Amino acid sequence: MLPGPTNVPNRVMRAMLAPIINHRSDDFVELYSDVVDKTQQVFQTQNDIVALSASGTGAVEAGVINLIKKDDKVIIPVNGEFSNRLSQLIAGQGANVIKLETPPGQNATFDQVKEAFDNNKDIKAFYVVHNETSTGTMVNYLDKVSDLTSRNDSFYVVDSVSLLGGTELPVDKWNIDVCMTGAQKAIAAPPGISPISVSPKAKKYMIENPPPTMYFNLARYFHYYEESKHTPFTPALPLLYAYREALEIILEEGLESVFKRHKTCSDALYSGLSAIGLTPFAKEEDRSISIVALNYLEGLQDKIFRDTLAKKFKVLVAGGFGDLKGKVFRVGCMGEVSPYHVMRTISAISSTLAMMGYDTDAQAGLKTAEEKLKDL
Amino acid sequence: MLPGPTNVPNRVMRAMLAPIINHRSDDFVELYSDVVDKTQQVFQTQNDIVALSASGTGAVEAGVINLIKKDDKVIIPVNGEFSNRLSQLIAGQGANVIKLETPPGQNATFDQVKEAFDNNKDIKAFYVVHNETSTGTMVNYLDKVSDLTSRNDSFYVVDSVSLLGGTELPVDKWNIDVCMTGAQKAIAAPPGISPISVSPKAKKYMIENPPPTMYFNLARYFHYYEESKHTPFTPALPLLYAYREALEIILEEGLESVFKRHKTCSDALYSGLSAIGLTPFAKEEDRSISIVALNYLEGLQDKIFRDTLAKKFKVLVAGGFGDLKGKVFRVGCMGEVSPYHVMRTISAISSTLAMMGYDTDAQAGLKTAEEKLKDL
Repeated sequence: MLPGPTNVPNRVMRAMLAPIINHRSDDFVELYSDVVDKTQQVFQTQNDIVALSASGTGAVEAGVINLIKKDDKVIIPVNGEFSNRLSQLIAGQGANVIKLETPPGQNATFDQVKEAFDNNKDIKAFYVVHNETSTGTMVNYLDKVSDLTSRNDSFYVVDSVSLLGGTELPVDKWNIDVCMTGAQKAIAAPPGISPISVSPKAKKYMIENPPPTMYFNLARYFHYYEESKHTPFTPALPLLYAYREALEIILEEGLESVFKRHKTCSDALYSGLSAIGLTPFAKEEDRSISIVALNYLEGLQDKIFRDTLAKKFKVLVAGGFGDLKGKVFRVGCMGEVSPYHVMRTISAISSTLAMMGYDTDAQAGLKTAEEKLKDL
Repeated sequence: MLPGPTNVPNRVMRAMLAPIINHRSDDFVELYSDVVDKTQQVFQTQNDIVALSASGTGAVEAGVINLIKKDDKVIIPVNGEFSNRLSQLIAGQGANVIKLETPPGQNATFDQVKEAFDNNKDIKAFYVVHNETSTGTMVNYLDKVSDLTSRNDSFYVVDSVSLLGGTELPVDKWNIDVCMTGAQKAIAAPPGISPISVSPKAKKYMIENPPPTMYFNLARYFHYYEESKHTPFTPALPLLYAYREALEIILEEGLESVFKRHKTCSDALYSGLSAIGLTPFAKEEDRSISIVALNYLEGLQDKIFRDTLAKKFKVLVAGGFGDLKGKVFRVGCMGEVSPYHVMRTISAISSTLAMMGYDTDAQAGLKTAEEKLKDL
């Protein structure tokens, strides 16, 4: 139940055992074209796709350095470790970063974003972290942002590393120019492949203004793909096979059903864990459906709690990040998450709390969760 | 018999099936510390190691952007696709690049390198591609370069992506500041992990002068490793397990034995394939021991030859790169390469040539190779 890397189904793990092929062969063309096609289906886009052999941060960096140049004006909401990293990356290019800062656990509102656009008519791009893994918040107004970016034809970039594949994010319908994710979160593949989608407008810009880099120069990937459906550099082949299999599993289940399963499981986790006496960290309307962050009870020791949960019940959850270390713990709710995972996690957490001397109402927690899970 | 990715032993493939762990856990500390330790043994160094989740080009890029700044003066021999890419990367940082260009298949001599140092006393770094995969050449004087770089304390950087682990390259003994390789060549792991070693002098420079990047900012990796033996970003876990297993296999066999096996097998391939009537592309003294590049016989069609070899005999070799497309083919001789691979490859190539109507002396080829292989 980690907030990524998540459990990987056996079918996906086994896909890695395909023999190592020549990445300049027809076999590779078949594999990579299929990866691109299935990624487009999950991203709900016709845009170009590049599946980078790197972790999510690699795709995020590619989404910045291919678009942002010195003195460009960029708006970005910041309320946690990953949005902070993204804003550092943008600032690192010499850009003029307008940060919309809110306390951890709380998002900038759409009105605040709109106000920033009203006050900065010359912005080049709007960047946003869809799901802030460090605090368990999720932005709920991504569908409305292109009304703002379309005003001056600025770029709309979404870092959905820890959520894409787990909730509605129709890239074309919402006019997202660049969208990045990682294979090891809601897609439930092993870490190491990070796909990115690029709109025709952003692609044109990237080709005309290549960055002083090679590995993350997306123009190079477009060129190789158009010429031969190859990648410019030797890709992480076993991980590409696994990633393709994970996409196939999502498409077999159907996007609507996958999204509903994520939503229902997180509803059940929030309400079930609240019923046993825990409180969610994030503000109610901003709560993530893939990362359930919870405040520690008074006096509860992070390390002892998580070690007990892991050793006695084999349930892994993550601690807090940065300033929130020791104050919250985070339960991943993505990928192959199911009612079984939800019930077992609530049961194991309440048992661990009981073992540590806390009075918890396990029955209330399990009943509440079961009620929510009826929707599935 | 590809020039990378190479065959991966089953033991290494199966290592990828280890369950996905938390990359912020004690289990990960154990895995990654072991990866670092074994990499140091194969690099023959006490220097810091970073195992990047990226292909070889990623490590090469890291070896450039962390050291080279605008207007730095850099010497680099260039004689093929990969040395050309490296020089482009260096030039991309705004450096003043002194290219020692030689025709493909032929290296700059040590005297030419020495002359360049004599004429440029203010150089910041010397970069060299150890083994030029595109043409099958290998530089034989890496042991002597530090006599030159030590004159003005410049940096000595070796891109050994397609050879490290297959031949003698003692990083500490030869005073190499930064050395990069890829897991999918002589180390015989799947592609996607690329280790890099960094000397204390280079490390100090990198920490004091971080590049405007995140994913390839090595200072960030040093910091995480020192603090917790973690990596800053989610690593490609299954590939790290595989890479560790591949290093373990090399260390079990022993470096000396691995190097001798590579040398003997490539000697046998060069002499055996010459005996059946083919000619090596590279100049004799510059020939690579991991990539055997051969000229096509008059009228021999690249695609038909390689397709026949692959379909009838299941032996995969690579075509030429760039300008050499259709003119040469390349046989990989690395990783788990053995007398069996050598004999089978010579047999399959001579049979394919015979099927295509060429008069070849298979018997001479096999006898010559067998003679060489007696050394093993």
